[in-house]
Amino acid sequence: MKTLNQATRDAALHRQGQLTKPPGALGRLEAVAVRLAAMQGRVCPRIERPWISVFAADHGVVAEGVSAFPQAVTGQMILNFMHGGAAICVLARETGAALEVVDVGSLLAADVMTDISNDAGRAHRIIDRSATGTANFAREAAMSASALEHAWGSGRRAVERARAAGADLFVGGEMGIGNTTTSVALACALLDTDPAALAGPGTGLDAAGVRHKAQVIGRALALHGPALADPREALRRVGGFEIAALAGAFAACAEYGLPAVIDGLIASTAALVAERLHPGARDWWLFGHRSAEPAHTQVLAALDAEPLLDLGMRLGEGSGAAAALPLIRLACALHTDMATFEEAAVASQ
Amino acid sequence: MKTLNQATRDAALHRQGQLTKPPGALGRLEAVAVRLAAMQGRVCPRIERPWISVFAADHGVVAEGVSAFPQAVTGQMILNFMHGGAAICVLARETGAALEVVDVGSLLAADVMTDISNDAGRAHRIIDRSATGTANFAREAAMSASALEHAWGSGRRAVERARAAGADLFVGGEMGIGNTTTSVALACALLDTDPAALAGPGTGLDAAGVRHKAQVIGRALALHGPALADPREALRRVGGFEIAALAGAFAACAEYGLPAVIDGLIASTAALVAERLHPGARDWWLFGHRSAEPAHTQVLAALDAEPLLDLGMRLGEGSGAAAALPLIRLACALHTDMATFEEAAVASQ
Repeated sequence: MKTLNQATRDAALHRQGQLTKPPGALGRLEAVAVRLAAMQGRVCPRIERPWISVFAADHGVVAEGVSAFPQAVTGQMILNFMHGGAAICVLARETGAALEVVDVGSLLAADVMTDISNDAGRAHRIIDRSATGTANFAREAAMSASALEHAWGSGRRAVERARAAGADLFVGGEMGIGNTTTSVALACALLDTDPAALAGPGTGLDAAGVRHKAQVIGRALALHGPALADPREALRRVGGFEIAALAGAFAACAEYGLPAVIDGLIASTAALVAERLHPGARDWWLFGHRSAEPAHTQVLAALDAEPLLDLGMRLGEGSGAAAALPLIRLACALHTDMATFEEAAVASQ
Repeated sequence: MKTLNQATRDAALHRQGQLTKPPGALGRLEAVAVRLAAMQGRVCPRIERPWISVFAADHGVVAEGVSAFPQAVTGQMILNFMHGGAAICVLARETGAALEVVDVGSLLAADVMTDISNDAGRAHRIIDRSATGTANFAREAAMSASALEHAWGSGRRAVERARAAGADLFVGGEMGIGNTTTSVALACALLDTDPAALAGPGTGLDAAGVRHKAQVIGRALALHGPALADPREALRRVGGFEIAALAGAFAACAEYGLPAVIDGLIASTAALVAERLHPGARDWWLFGHRSAEPAHTQVLAALDAEPLLDLGMRLGEGSGAAAALPLIRLACALHTDMATFEEAAVASQ
């Protein structure tokens, strides 16, 4: 894992103290600039080429009736990403981010649509999958060891594409009908928590639906038992392909020293797996937002993470991370472009 | 006061339900787009020409030793605004907002600096004042009735300049050493609260400094007594010129139907005065951020306001409102540019 640059961190902290404002008056925007200075190894950090990879996959557990939307929506949304109509497409356009959708295991046929464009906000489609959909983890392991390895690697390959394109910030998003069920199962395994405390509405379940979802997860946790104590095995048994890809991507960001912005519940659960397997990886991550999904708060706490935004979003796709990008850029601009007390001839405290 | 357009509000709400996302999944970004649709009278609102007026003034109460920074900083910061070095200058540049600093009562001599430029991020300086600094409200009324009228009018004139320039969003900021003391005094009067519960560190007082500040405010509240029950009289007796200007500006925004974004404690206290004097004016305001100043939470609650950001900022200048601008624009872009379920051929719930 790459280590943070303490010298540029200290210099950035010193610079913050000289800017024409009371100490600390820009709150967490100051900390973001200092963190990025340590990550980028420059006193005045900047984000010029953000990159968004949205990992998409299908989930066998949808057979248990745990989602408000039909399973076909995963594939339909992949096409919507390619046409530029999804929320993350709009956010990519507005923030000038490169956007790709990586099919790491959806049920969508590979030849459904050829790549129509790679304009701003229209996602380039990458197919990097070993299977179409996981098995139903309420009955068996979600994936084989080799499928897990493939999905983890597809996250890593996305980060390598981002680096090759000169990206200076990585956002990992996801799409997968059923994946709040998968994430909550995984979070319960990692945090040793009761699913009734963590299950939420996902795309829109009512209270009875949430109770059913928690019961399905509870049965799965009982089925897989003590094997879930190992994070990698938990990921294999009750995880999803897009979650494995995200975990692989976030671990690769830490290895290569590419700052990442973590999105909501699903991305944060993937980040927690990556941190458990590669302790300290979280030094390379900023957290975009706090999701309305109840489990997110516990997962964030386990990562000792305090996200920038808290807007009641619960969409996924990387949308909460992308929405935080303008703030991260403002933090860099303030840090770099404000006058110092000396430059402005303003009396300091 | 202008009334909101309920027809475009309803049409915008309907549009939100058709976009390719689970209902409500964009959280408060959805509500922002719908609010703006009602304000702008168009189903798909947009912010193209934001305008920032920073009102600057000095405070006689600084003689009581209530600020961590010397009084001369107000004038020095006016020059910093003109040179483009202050935080709000950077934020104006980054968000493409027009920026002016309106001297509504500082001690800075009128001829100290001629206007050097009006480039992006360099504030044009307007002098629109009837006095240089308020009287010390711990000993007498801060201003005369005619001075209050002038300051209120200078806020209104700023909104008129913004409208003449084609602005579609107004941000009111402030600069004034001592003005957290003034705002807390005014908030205590409006909310009938104890200063010990509301006084905070401002630009950086220690605990003893905060206690002293609360005592000074307590003495002032006792001095002015029952007269403070009237909001306008409270503003005259324990207010400040920039606070009166902000109140006048926010009231004018409601009268003309120009959406405004409210900043932190000082701006919100001004907004509370405007709402008390012109009930319903708050329909025209969005709230940018929750300040780290403890009184802000109470003032926001009195306005039934939930700000977009909560980043521990406490700078003023309009910085917390300007930092929320990119989010407001993303809310509009998502609302306008996302595909509907029908357009994208995605199955809805």
